[in-house]
Amino acid sequence: MKLVRYGPPGGEKPGLLAADDSLRDLSGEIEDLSGLALSPAELARLHALDPSSLPRVSGDPRFGPPVGSVGKCIGVGLNYADHAAEAGMAAPDEPILFMKANTALCGPNDDLTLPPGSQKTDWEVELAVVIGTLTRRVSEAKALDCVAGYAVMNDLSERSYQLEGTGQWLKGKSCDGFAPLGPWLVTADEVPDPQRLRLWTKVNDEIMQDGSTATMIFPVGFLVSYISRFMTLMPGDVIATGTPPGVGMGRKPQVFLKKADVVEVGVEGLGAQRQQVIA
Amino acid sequence: MKLVRYGPPGGEKPGLLAADDSLRDLSGEIEDLSGLALSPAELARLHALDPSSLPRVSGDPRFGPPVGSVGKCIGVGLNYADHAAEAGMAAPDEPILFMKANTALCGPNDDLTLPPGSQKTDWEVELAVVIGTLTRRVSEAKALDCVAGYAVMNDLSERSYQLEGTGQWLKGKSCDGFAPLGPWLVTADEVPDPQRLRLWTKVNDEIMQDGSTATMIFPVGFLVSYISRFMTLMPGDVIATGTPPGVGMGRKPQVFLKKADVVEVGVEGLGAQRQQVIA
Repeated sequence: MKLVRYGPPGGEKPGLLAADDSLRDLSGEIEDLSGLALSPAELARLHALDPSSLPRVSGDPRFGPPVGSVGKCIGVGLNYADHAAEAGMAAPDEPILFMKANTALCGPNDDLTLPPGSQKTDWEVELAVVIGTLTRRVSEAKALDCVAGYAVMNDLSERSYQLEGTGQWLKGKSCDGFAPLGPWLVTADEVPDPQRLRLWTKVNDEIMQDGSTATMIFPVGFLVSYISRFMTLMPGDVIATGTPPGVGMGRKPQVFLKKADVVEVGVEGLGAQRQQVIA
Repeated sequence: MKLVRYGPPGGEKPGLLAADDSLRDLSGEIEDLSGLALSPAELARLHALDPSSLPRVSGDPRFGPPVGSVGKCIGVGLNYADHAAEAGMAAPDEPILFMKANTALCGPNDDLTLPPGSQKTDWEVELAVVIGTLTRRVSEAKALDCVAGYAVMNDLSERSYQLEGTGQWLKGKSCDGFAPLGPWLVTADEVPDPQRLRLWTKVNDEIMQDGSTATMIFPVGFLVSYISRFMTLMPGDVIATGTPPGVGMGRKPQVFLKKADVVEVGVEGLGAQRQQVIA
């Protein structure tokens, strides 16, 4: 299934994209795409519905992030071998974890407001993993059973806030609008191998990133297992699994986002996002 | 007011501690001590109630964290001049920010389970600030107006996870039970000067930390203003403002928590916590 949340910011309703590309409202079935609605049992129940029996949504509504009430948005740093090389850094022995503020989440096509004075706002296309069940110290073998589905995320980063101030990446990862998620939550049954997905970024129609999840240093199952050793993952938690080469910071000369730029990011099978940069 | 959440984990109800030390139930007034219930208007409404008109809670219930549905739990590193000296680190030019997983929050007197294999679990008594209103790029002069109240937090930290692995402090700050909060949320009107509070830690009855918020490098108003430049703070977000000297890592020889230890932490006017360490 391709699940969505549509409507104005803060007032999104749950929906699903039917095989005929029509948008169907799920408000009669679940309150929101969050928490327990992401459990295997609830997803199976939604899967058994006949989409044509659900109310059709007319027009062309905004999409919000396809998960509501996200508790934790966890990022993985330098998780692509080719991106680590580009950044001039050694591949890490263990996953580097950081957090993005959950207030950074927004819809996939919302405008991107540069933080006031920002000189170094950068893109990072990522495969985002959405947790479906309470997950604590899960084995790698069973880790993918805890995943409700996948989505595209642009893990936007202000490099001076992230790297040039004092300590910790949080400051450069958490600005409002720095975590566009979606357009869809694609349920895990439709992503048989998360390690074989092409992912790409275009800025003003020019390809900037063009990679594959095949070059992840730590694959999704390992990441979920590893993170669950350090904290309990809850339904609706989001893991952004790292970015392939081609970020602005890694280019020579460096390129960062400026007013009027258009950023597009996509992951094979999960759709694409488009952000217009505004000041 | 001293506001609390009482009852079993996940099933806490809101309450308040009356002047006669009786516990009064607030379930008839607010759904939870979270989100909009922390707004100035709602706190003023609760303040105007006659506690003796509220149902008295009998027995000696468990206290949970005095804030529910916490979105972000933000920590400030090395924020006491004397603690930075103890850690052998220069006082930072700007606040060091990190995140604790919100799943680390627990009640003030809940048992502390050491993470499996943990050798370096350490205490940090802290003044926690609870945000009451949506706060974005607030000036330092107006920052304290955004604070609903204050509470004690023990910012527990697994030092090997925090410092010895690859990157970022998150891993060592986020284990379940690593953020006991409370016992009370003391509303800001009862804390006229958050920079004049004694705070202390005892382990097995021995004083380990005995400091004052007067030695903070960045005071509370500055911190709220600073953090709100990088992310939007929401009602119920918690800021742990750093710890004074005397953590286990800073002692010679180092001391870390082990099974059967008892940790007590307290902040002047905000009450005290007690954690029994279990394996």
